[in-house]
Amino acid sequence: MKDIDVGQEVRRTQRSDKLKRDLSQRLAKIEGQIRGISRMVDNDVYCDDILNQITAVQSAIGSVRNILLESHIKSCVLESIEKNENEIIDELMGTLKRMLK
Amino acid sequence: MKDIDVGQEVRRTQRSDKLKRDLSQRLAKIEGQIRGISRMVDNDVYCDDILNQITAVQSAIGSVRNILLESHIKSCVLESIEKNENEIIDELMGTLKRMLK
Amino acid sequence: MKDIDVGQEVRRTQRSDKLKRDLSQRLAKIEGQIRGISRMVDNDVYCDDILNQITAVQSAIGSVRNILLESHIKSCVLESIEKNENEIIDELMGTLKRMLK
Amino acid sequence: MKDIDVGQEVRRTQRSDKLKRDLSQRLAKIEGQIRGISRMVDNDVYCDDILNQITAVQSAIGSVRNILLESHIKSCVLESIEKNENEIIDELMGTLKRMLK
Repeated sequence: MKDIDVGQEVRRTQRSDKLKRDLSQRLAKIEGQIRGISRMVDNDVYCDDILNQITAVQSAIGSVRNILLESHIKSCVLESIEKNENEIIDELMGTLKRMLK
Repeated sequence: MKDIDVGQEVRRTQRSDKLKRDLSQRLAKIEGQIRGISRMVDNDVYCDDILNQITAVQSAIGSVRNILLESHIKSCVLESIEKNENEIIDELMGTLKRMLK
Repeated sequence: MKDIDVGQEVRRTQRSDKLKRDLSQRLAKIEGQIRGISRMVDNDVYCDDILNQITAVQSAIGSVRNILLESHIKSCVLESIEKNENEIIDELMGTLKRMLK
Repeated sequence: MKDIDVGQEVRRTQRSDKLKRDLSQRLAKIEGQIRGISRMVDNDVYCDDILNQITAVQSAIGSVRNILLESHIKSCVLESIEKNENEIIDELMGTLKRMLK
């Protein structure tokens, strides 16, 4: 992750405690799932069971991404547009294209 | 993850040490990336930077999935077909459809 | 496709001739590729060749989607936000979630 | 689409009339949907409605791909493995990786 410098500043996004708690719990659960997959590999668990567990993790990460994307559009993007800083839309499009690949 | 019972047996896949080590290192790195994303959320890092980090993690998990899928097809699926246990193909198709959704 | 009624009105998006021409050419090419796939199926062309042609068409449709999405965000979404019609963001999020599934 | 030459031969897949009819009908419907999207673009239909129609087409093409993939694995791949022509698995993996990207 590289910080984006705007002059001396690093760009930040203020998040509510509720959002942080929700994302933090989801990410802790995903971390546990990744550790679980690692144990499955080590313990010679049948491939197909691991593959389905991987699909489940990908879906869980997709949910975190959607929550963060929605929050980004509703806060950062909206505020930037209201300040006529419309270049944020090119940044958003680049990010969406990487996601949609 | 549920184990698939075949009578009293649980299905297993013998994996080479080389494959286990490769997958294990990749999963450890992914676990670290997930923890990193969690810290970024807590520290109010800019959303767009986190979103791109999430895309990177999804790609890393996709690589683990591809390695495991290839190993599954080249070992379990191949051996089952050689033993005329062709029902493994329906199982594989179900797994692929979940992946491709 | 259902039209979205806003009172008596149907929502429309003015598009430049340049954008229409670009999308129209891409869609005509995709239509030809779909017809080509249909012929391949009829003529017993080898499955793997057809599958790779399908992947190519999906990528071409993805490009049309990205062009339209970018144009949507830069025109409709931007203008709505400038008129404080921020409910367009919920609509956009719903559409993005369907895309990202 | 390039034909794969094996000496003078072009690889072919015999398909049942039932499968051909099913795929042919699905592809004809998809072709109509693509033409419909082209008309929507020309007639200045609201972007979000077109984007959702594109998502519907992508899902329809995904179904054609899954039907063809299943038929490929259950015929070509199975028969090749039974003839010990296991190099078909590398071809399948390449195709799956392109699909899963």
